[in-house]
Amino acid sequence: MSQSNLSHFNNAGEAHMVDVGDKAITQRTAICEGAIEMLPNTLALIMAGNHKKGDVLGIARIAGIMASKKTADLIPLCHPLPLTHVEIQLQPQVDSCRVHCLTTVKTNGQTGVEMEALMATQIALLTIYDMCKAVDRGMVIQGLRLLEKSGGKSGHWQHVEGQN
Amino acid sequence: MSQSNLSHFNNAGEAHMVDVGDKAITQRTAICEGAIEMLPNTLALIMAGNHKKGDVLGIARIAGIMASKKTADLIPLCHPLPLTHVEIQLQPQVDSCRVHCLTTVKTNGQTGVEMEALMATQIALLTIYDMCKAVDRGMVIQGLRLLEKSGGKSGHWQHVEGQN
Amino acid sequence: MSQSNLSHFNNAGEAHMVDVGDKAITQRTAICEGAIEMLPNTLALIMAGNHKKGDVLGIARIAGIMASKKTADLIPLCHPLPLTHVEIQLQPQVDSCRVHCLTTVKTNGQTGVEMEALMATQIALLTIYDMCKAVDRGMVIQGLRLLEKSGGKSGHWQHVEGQN
Amino acid sequence: MSQSNLSHFNNAGEAHMVDVGDKAITQRTAICEGAIEMLPNTLALIMAGNHKKGDVLGIARIAGIMASKKTADLIPLCHPLPLTHVEIQLQPQVDSCRVHCLTTVKTNGQTGVEMEALMATQIALLTIYDMCKAVDRGMVIQGLRLLEKSGGKSGHWQHVEGQN
Amino acid sequence: MSQSNLSHFNNAGEAHMVDVGDKAITQRTAICEGAIEMLPNTLALIMAGNHKKGDVLGIARIAGIMASKKTADLIPLCHPLPLTHVEIQLQPQVDSCRVHCLTTVKTNGQTGVEMEALMATQIALLTIYDMCKAVDRGMVIQGLRLLEKSGGKSGHWQHVEGQN
Amino acid sequence: MSQSNLSHFNNAGEAHMVDVGDKAITQRTAICEGAIEMLPNTLALIMAGNHKKGDVLGIARIAGIMASKKTADLIPLCHPLPLTHVEIQLQPQVDSCRVHCLTTVKTNGQTGVEMEALMATQIALLTIYDMCKAVDRGMVIQGLRLLEKSGGKSGHWQHVEGQN
Repeated sequence: MSQSNLSHFNNAGEAHMVDVGDKAITQRTAICEGAIEMLPNTLALIMAGNHKKGDVLGIARIAGIMASKKTADLIPLCHPLPLTHVEIQLQPQVDSCRVHCLTTVKTNGQTGVEMEALMATQIALLTIYDMCKAVDRGMVIQGLRLLEKSGGKSGHWQHVEGQN
Repeated sequence: MSQSNLSHFNNAGEAHMVDVGDKAITQRTAICEGAIEMLPNTLALIMAGNHKKGDVLGIARIAGIMASKKTADLIPLCHPLPLTHVEIQLQPQVDSCRVHCLTTVKTNGQTGVEMEALMATQIALLTIYDMCKAVDRGMVIQGLRLLEKSGGKSGHWQHVEGQN
Repeated sequence: MSQSNLSHFNNAGEAHMVDVGDKAITQRTAICEGAIEMLPNTLALIMAGNHKKGDVLGIARIAGIMASKKTADLIPLCHPLPLTHVEIQLQPQVDSCRVHCLTTVKTNGQTGVEMEALMATQIALLTIYDMCKAVDRGMVIQGLRLLEKSGGKSGHWQHVEGQN
Repeated sequence: MSQSNLSHFNNAGEAHMVDVGDKAITQRTAICEGAIEMLPNTLALIMAGNHKKGDVLGIARIAGIMASKKTADLIPLCHPLPLTHVEIQLQPQVDSCRVHCLTTVKTNGQTGVEMEALMATQIALLTIYDMCKAVDRGMVIQGLRLLEKSGGKSGHWQHVEGQN
Repeated sequence: MSQSNLSHFNNAGEAHMVDVGDKAITQRTAICEGAIEMLPNTLALIMAGNHKKGDVLGIARIAGIMASKKTADLIPLCHPLPLTHVEIQLQPQVDSCRVHCLTTVKTNGQTGVEMEALMATQIALLTIYDMCKAVDRGMVIQGLRLLEKSGGKSGHWQHVEGQN
Repeated sequence: MSQSNLSHFNNAGEAHMVDVGDKAITQRTAICEGAIEMLPNTLALIMAGNHKKGDVLGIARIAGIMASKKTADLIPLCHPLPLTHVEIQLQPQVDSCRVHCLTTVKTNGQTGVEMEALMATQIALLTIYDMCKAVDRGMVIQGLRLLEKSGGKSGHWQHVEGQN
């Protein structure tokens, strides 16, 4: 295994923004998930608000979508990309006492959108933390991972439960 | 427990940036942790780079520090705060095959810096994902949580293992 | 009336960020209003969504709050200010077929927050335009104005209907 | 008219960034207008500065152009777009005691640039407010609207006076 | 001379945002200079525009002021600071065929504003490059340096010609 | 030589973002250089850190890459561009007691990337200043210039020593 496996470094071991100028423009999709665990009462507050007022999940969704557009500002070696689609599903799960987040991001571009999908997921979950922290400081964000990607030279990849 | 527990909403259930104008300016600290799990080979690559060239952790640390300064841009109802200190420790842990991140943020202000510390931690871990994803798409971010906070009216809070 | 009335220019007529270093830190408030006029059907769609799903006004409110924090990024000679409170009320008005926006912004600082309140109002209204433009391109934003300000050396100011 | 007319929401009524990945890339143009009304003396100050020093309109023009590039940062569900042209005309109108703003924005892209043109117009007018507010707090922004758009599937649209 | 002289690194040699929480808030000033050298014809074009139309220096001044507010976004370990004053003087110097830039920045804060003053100077000069590059690609930015600073624990410092 | 040589102004002498909508998309490259001069002891500290800990140059490189992505945010009339490659080489030069910076930026686009390459160079050098200023306030940034560009209608251009 050589150092050159980490493509964000050149032969001298110095970071660079990898040259993608010769890559084809293809349709690319990335799907990510993550969750935030909380106390039962906190989840109940969120679920009450979701249907009437105090819409925590609606605000988290907007924060996630907006953050996906800032990925290249935040991740040092990310290429800027014009996204064509962002969708965030936030699902309260009473049994496991958490809100689950599933994010899909698409572009037509020369690099993939995994980072944009992870960013959207993460900021949506952090926004839930922010809005509920006054009643529950112990919330934990868990299992932020890529589930699937397609497009580009490396093609299709899918997370397999119990592997990777 | 009433809806009014979620202070980010007014009586009409509408989101607002909470009025902190009458709060005292006190020294505030927040300490957070999180980790990114990966394949043994990926961790080996990171650890090799850390001591010679291809410094993944050094870049992740910078990304996390820079992100902490953008917290109010990303989290909709966060108050902008002039941070006085940000420290990020990234520790490879061979036994659990992960990089652990411990972040401390301080300010003198009218609100706490929990979100800034969580943001720094999260973006540092996402940056590790970005730099290693070409060799390991299955990395997972786990256990992003607040460990401790001090300052302000609500005073000192500490995470207790096994509780929340 | 001399040129020096426009304090954003020095004696040579060159723009500068005015020196506020010797001003006292006082509590400052600004209240603004504005409205977006639309077709009756458009307003009906918004009002339906506000109570069930498709929450246009909730998203506009978040966009306005977030924009208030970016005022100094967008208005060239504005001083950066740490806001302590932002509140946006969006009120559908069936008779006049429009959504009215009333915004309150506060800070403890050396300059006022009129621009932050106007910015929040304007971006909230533009976000309504964005979300409804597919069904109504002819919407118009009207009457964006300061209603009241307090704090600072110039003290209290209030808009009087029919005067300026 | 059904809820689904508001394309920024999916079938569950949740906001998303609409998928434009299959839309053709076409040349798109949007033309907007707006105005800021003020006291005669304020307009006189601006007009004096425009020709000699204290160039309020020149600064407002720059602020508007720069803001057009940040539209996707500010409007939650806007797609990021690489603009190819922005032109802002600021015209003092003595009879109506106001400055009129006419903005043209172009791109080659998958979505239109109406929001970018409205944003540029609005921030240019707000910048005029900022620079003149010390002498005239009662200025009002009026009539911010789309005048014309072309390109894309929905084709050409033009504002007709007295309609919409 | 020990490594610890570079305060941006902790004892482990890892970058951090230095803790300034215990520093006094004092009035701080920084004055910087820099210049851009160009062909005589380019300088003539700028000087013509400065008095009539095509105001290169006015736009460069605005760009520099706006950039000073983004210093903490761009310089990784800079503390965010609320600036109280920014002044940029751009002086065409026919004999040396260049535009000279002199920038003053002030704040009341816990750290100095040297970086903000250097940033404003640099972006003002780069903006001149941008606007004139179509007629003169060989322009060179020279002599960007701190001239003077005051405030804070380290007190007053002044550049002495021929020394450092 | 007419005013129209400065393409960033229209016939009325007003600034605009030049219309590039009809330009061909070609591969474009820009190469820039610049340097920061310092005391021998400062350079020694940097060189020590570069190989062990306290990696000033690694952090400066990241800052430069990230800044290149913000060029259109900072330079008023720059077109936003999706960069495909950024590479920054920072070379300590003991004889001349300075760090030299050589930057290459590429895109496939309708306008060139000279400004992005200059921006990356400048922010990398300013970051070195920031990290070393506690031990050497007299550092000077010199010789920031374009060395070479290719692509686009104006084609290849190369700096010739002793000429412009």
